[in-house]
Amino acid sequence: MTRPGPITVALTHGAYVPGVGTIAVVIDQLRAGTTITMALTNGARRVIPVTSVDEALARRDSLRRENPGRRVLLGGERGGVLIPGFDLGNSPREYTRERVEDADIVFTTTNGTAALHAARSSPLVVVACLANLSAAAAVVDREPRPISIICAGTHGLVGLDDALVAGAMVRCLPDRPLAEDDAARLCLTWWDDAAEDIRNALASSLGGRGLIALNQHEDLEFCAQIDITSVVPRPMPDGSLVPA
Amino acid sequence: MTRPGPITVALTHGAYVPGVGTIAVVIDQLRAGTTITMALTNGARRVIPVTSVDEALARRDSLRRENPGRRVLLGGERGGVLIPGFDLGNSPREYTRERVEDADIVFTTTNGTAALHAARSSPLVVVACLANLSAAAAVVDREPRPISIICAGTHGLVGLDDALVAGAMVRCLPDRPLAEDDAARLCLTWWDDAAEDIRNALASSLGGRGLIALNQHEDLEFCAQIDITSVVPRPMPDGSLVPA
Repeated sequence: MTRPGPITVALTHGAYVPGVGTIAVVIDQLRAGTTITMALTNGARRVIPVTSVDEALARRDSLRRENPGRRVLLGGERGGVLIPGFDLGNSPREYTRERVEDADIVFTTTNGTAALHAARSSPLVVVACLANLSAAAAVVDREPRPISIICAGTHGLVGLDDALVAGAMVRCLPDRPLAEDDAARLCLTWWDDAAEDIRNALASSLGGRGLIALNQHEDLEFCAQIDITSVVPRPMPDGSLVPA
Repeated sequence: MTRPGPITVALTHGAYVPGVGTIAVVIDQLRAGTTITMALTNGARRVIPVTSVDEALARRDSLRRENPGRRVLLGGERGGVLIPGFDLGNSPREYTRERVEDADIVFTTTNGTAALHAARSSPLVVVACLANLSAAAAVVDREPRPISIICAGTHGLVGLDDALVAGAMVRCLPDRPLAEDDAARLCLTWWDDAAEDIRNALASSLGGRGLIALNQHEDLEFCAQIDITSVVPRPMPDGSLVPA
């Protein structure tokens, strides 16, 4: 049997060096990755990640023209505040079945979209978060190719929140060797340290401190849950995310 | 009193974003930073870091022409092997007082030189390693400016060895706030985890695994020592390193 390929972690999407034939696991734990995963879990047809508010509005309009009967919702935030004219913010708790079932969701996310863009040459890309941890690990572990875990980070900065999930994912793939780069080992020690109190670990992170400043403590609790869904978002060639 | 400026950690020199007026702490723990520190501790006049073997030979020749009476030694390695025509390798244990006192040392180091180059616009740059940890922390903590810790890494890869020293340095600067970026927090959790057995922590790192492959276990023991010197290398405008 061939030995499965090694795991690398890029601590920001800018640090990711695309490898030929490498599987990409994109992590944006607080909150875009978790929100997209919950939207698809609760029956959204697909989530279309875009970078800007203008792009979101244009995409919504063209989707409505193409499919007049379809529900199209706009989701996302700027500085933690609902965007005027948008239907949903960036809290995974908003993406309930009542709100999102059967809808197309155009979703603005700066860091998550950039990380997905960085991964675009990979033959298999999945979005992983604590909510779908084991399911995402199972999807990528089916293939013997090398795995790159790409932390979205925040505007180029390293985030303990994404690093935590990267470490958890490495822990879920025990048969894989680690690549030479030590970023995966660093995330693993952080996860092993933090696993006892995930809520507090997330609270201490770049994204977590931002949520606390916005008084979004309930999102921290929500995002600290592990394996609450088996839905693993995967981008189609047009960039839209659907369940793998 | 003004609050002292925050600490940032760049996990590779490529990840370092120069800040105006920021103090730079350059770390290349295994082994160039430790070796340079021990050379100056043992009386070398200065250490001149260069990138290539050709550059080292040319620099040695021009130094000898300029100062015919001075001892100039060549130090460094390629792939762990002594370079033909060089006087010293890259083990800190070779740089004894008998060998290096009063000498100028031209030293080839790819990652360390690149990290020093990245820091060149800083008003104060120091080389830190476990051997001079407290002394280096004391030098930079005298100034209230922000501090950037730059891990040299290895050919663009993150190393647990440099990350360990970065965490130790953050722990030595308790009055400093941490910058928004979480890389410093990640190093701190790694240091707090590993501090009980530094030798093993270094052995598990990118640089440490390389030393073990070269059968250089004694260098691991040597480099695991903390605060064995108060000498802190600092680059002059011409790039040569002298005690701060």
